[in-house]
Amino acid sequence: MHAPAALIFLISAAAIIPLAHLMGIATEELAARTGPTFGGLMNATLGNAAELIIGIFALRAGLIELVKASLTGSIIGNLLLILGLSLLAGGLKHQTQTFNRQAAGMNVALLALAAVGLVVPALFLFTHPRGEAATLEHLSETVAVVMLAIYLLSLVFSLKTHRDLFRPEEAHEPPQWSLRRAVISLVVATALVAWLSEILVGVTEETIAELGVSELFIGVIIIPLVGNAAEHGAAVMVAAKNKMDLSFAIAVGSSTQVALFVAPLLVFISLAFGNPMDLAFTAFEVTAVALAVGVVTVISLDGESNWLEGAQLLAVYGILAAAFFFF
Amino acid sequence: MHAPAALIFLISAAAIIPLAHLMGIATEELAARTGPTFGGLMNATLGNAAELIIGIFALRAGLIELVKASLTGSIIGNLLLILGLSLLAGGLKHQTQTFNRQAAGMNVALLALAAVGLVVPALFLFTHPRGEAATLEHLSETVAVVMLAIYLLSLVFSLKTHRDLFRPEEAHEPPQWSLRRAVISLVVATALVAWLSEILVGVTEETIAELGVSELFIGVIIIPLVGNAAEHGAAVMVAAKNKMDLSFAIAVGSSTQVALFVAPLLVFISLAFGNPMDLAFTAFEVTAVALAVGVVTVISLDGESNWLEGAQLLAVYGILAAAFFFF
Amino acid sequence: MHAPAALIFLISAAAIIPLAHLMGIATEELAARTGPTFGGLMNATLGNAAELIIGIFALRAGLIELVKASLTGSIIGNLLLILGLSLLAGGLKHQTQTFNRQAAGMNVALLALAAVGLVVPALFLFTHPRGEAATLEHLSETVAVVMLAIYLLSLVFSLKTHRDLFRPEEAHEPPQWSLRRAVISLVVATALVAWLSEILVGVTEETIAELGVSELFIGVIIIPLVGNAAEHGAAVMVAAKNKMDLSFAIAVGSSTQVALFVAPLLVFISLAFGNPMDLAFTAFEVTAVALAVGVVTVISLDGESNWLEGAQLLAVYGILAAAFFFF
Repeated sequence: MHAPAALIFLISAAAIIPLAHLMGIATEELAARTGPTFGGLMNATLGNAAELIIGIFALRAGLIELVKASLTGSIIGNLLLILGLSLLAGGLKHQTQTFNRQAAGMNVALLALAAVGLVVPALFLFTHPRGEAATLEHLSETVAVVMLAIYLLSLVFSLKTHRDLFRPEEAHEPPQWSLRRAVISLVVATALVAWLSEILVGVTEETIAELGVSELFIGVIIIPLVGNAAEHGAAVMVAAKNKMDLSFAIAVGSSTQVALFVAPLLVFISLAFGNPMDLAFTAFEVTAVALAVGVVTVISLDGESNWLEGAQLLAVYGILAAAFFFF
Repeated sequence: MHAPAALIFLISAAAIIPLAHLMGIATEELAARTGPTFGGLMNATLGNAAELIIGIFALRAGLIELVKASLTGSIIGNLLLILGLSLLAGGLKHQTQTFNRQAAGMNVALLALAAVGLVVPALFLFTHPRGEAATLEHLSETVAVVMLAIYLLSLVFSLKTHRDLFRPEEAHEPPQWSLRRAVISLVVATALVAWLSEILVGVTEETIAELGVSELFIGVIIIPLVGNAAEHGAAVMVAAKNKMDLSFAIAVGSSTQVALFVAPLLVFISLAFGNPMDLAFTAFEVTAVALAVGVVTVISLDGESNWLEGAQLLAVYGILAAAFFFF
Repeated sequence: MHAPAALIFLISAAAIIPLAHLMGIATEELAARTGPTFGGLMNATLGNAAELIIGIFALRAGLIELVKASLTGSIIGNLLLILGLSLLAGGLKHQTQTFNRQAAGMNVALLALAAVGLVVPALFLFTHPRGEAATLEHLSETVAVVMLAIYLLSLVFSLKTHRDLFRPEEAHEPPQWSLRRAVISLVVATALVAWLSEILVGVTEETIAELGVSELFIGVIIIPLVGNAAEHGAAVMVAAKNKMDLSFAIAVGSSTQVALFVAPLLVFISLAFGNPMDLAFTAFEVTAVALAVGVVTVISLDGESNWLEGAQLLAVYGILAAAFFFF
């Protein structure tokens, strides 16, 4: 272990990307064997499993601010970088692309709710700077319970009561793998991601010291790139094929999943480690999420997209990334 | 008067609810006897009379923060709790409900204006923390004048120049009561509400001490529940009957009425008591109103609603109510 | 030069207005002689030339806060005052006016991006109050580069890849002036505006002292009125003729031009004067821009307008102007 920490960080991060991709494929193969409802449920809970695993190891190592930064980064990365690249790639091939406004509207409304859930604890901390950590914890847990409840209800909505609105264009392909292959792939890939996450988290602090960048930058920009690389590819590819509903579902859906499912789950998991994580993000993290949600709302409410809208999302991401770099 | 204050508070609050309802019915009976324009004007000015009366007695007792909290609570309660329950009740019976986007758009734009009117004085106080109370008062009065002017113009719009857009589904029912009965009911109910408001306000401070909750929580959550209980019932009932335009008009219209009519009126009434109320709400109150307006805007701009949108509004209300409880 | 400064300020300001108008006409005459693409480019770069010139002289005189205030004022003035007057004038003559939602949507999305570009440096300054001026400068320059890039891309979009969406109603009129007359008019008017700007800037500080108003008020309210007076007339006139797309393009387009072209350009020009201007506006300026963008978004996303929406924009402008006066 004489290699510099930054190199180990880089290698383990690079190795997680294909494994996270494999987890995604195995999940979809298993989902294809079940009915659409149970399959949707699997995608909805395992879709960000890699991020969840990295988060758990980082929490265990006490890197609470890093976990919170990576949640922020995952939300804005999905909304601005992935969706931006998708709209740009799709828009360069197609003059104007359309998508289902009602499905997009549900996701945008969930994002607005997530933004409320992040603004409120941050504002509490801002107006009660002198501590009251226990109250902040209670408030964070209440917010987490409400977020989880709404996430569950949104699954009932999209998988049951209003399932006609979602992914109509996606032919339900038959499974390609044997059940055995799918299960083994999922188990092995998950175990490897867990192992690599532990290594990654173990060298993060040293890497930060070596590279001279801030923990916030590593958390907000670098880690979400690792966790979401697979989604990047998928969302951009289907956008180029003009399947915008699916592209939206991947990019925005992944963002709502992180905000309303992964984040509250980590709040409760952190309790088990005796090192509770609250939901009071920094002023700049909250603002970044609110701005990202606002811009995506403005762009998606008309049910149409073009390459300039993609470029605009990337520009907002660039401004925010620069700010996180300078912070 | 040996009963505990909380009990007196509870009884007088409970007694106001049916009386506010009676005031509403009597107002509508009188309105049905006049033309639609004058009738609309009566509903627009007397629709939140109970809240206005409670506010006046609280101002006279010097409970300025309580009045401001109850205004905040009434705005977010109408937007999130009443509209949320309505969309949920309607959405559970009907797959997708539609409403007139232009009428909803007018109300949403009025809400945005109201949010501006609340943000600006609060920001002034935030950036000039060292006082300048007279300037803050002048600014609040200017904002109040602009708000009242826009409220009057919105009545001209909805009752005169663009009246076709509003409540097309509502059959104008003939009056059921005699004129005499309507007038006497209105006068007696108003007098009783005034009497009970005086009692309610008189025991509020003691009740806060007894229950150990904050003045902010009583003002933001409890008092608006009392003042708006009648609207709750009506908005939910018509939503279940799929009359969404009417449900929107009650819930969102009541909210704009409080923000653009009751609040500025109380600013001027407070001058008469020599104890001027400004419009500089706390950072959290302003944020709560801004978030509520933002979420309602996102949900209503597409002209369609469903049960999940109702649940989302209730979730936002839950998060804000929890925060006010912990503040 | 014994006249009071305020009088000189007033006369030079009044003299700039018709000259700025003449610059606008000469630019359009020259644009009409070229193809629509190059003509559009000329309008897009010279459209706010008067403001740019005033800004340059103010920067040279070291009046950085005044320049920033005038940028803020120009953005909110175009969005609220010009658009408000246009919607009001148009709406008083026509019941409901419609406009191209996709073209309006592009401008609104550009505004949202501009708001992000102004919020981020201000938040950096707010959270790093103890200086780090060099970092703030780097961040401002990064933001300025991104803004300029997006402005250029928006020109590619509106003049090339999606030009069908823009100004379909505007008959491309043949040039009325000789080339010689157009060029000479442009050169002479520009030179006179530059000369008057120097005088105007030279007496600004004395005028502020004489009138007892704040530099912020002069910058946010008065100077943009001078620079934008010509646009006011044009936008209101075409709105009354029910050409809403053109009215929107002038009012909102002028606003995005100031935010995404003039402001970043002044950042780089300020470097040449050795007196760098950053993009960290005051909390109230940022809030004012964000509120203006939010209200215009709410009003324009439905593709319809009426007189009440115009009155609402004017009301928001009134509230903000009052606040800047009291600040």
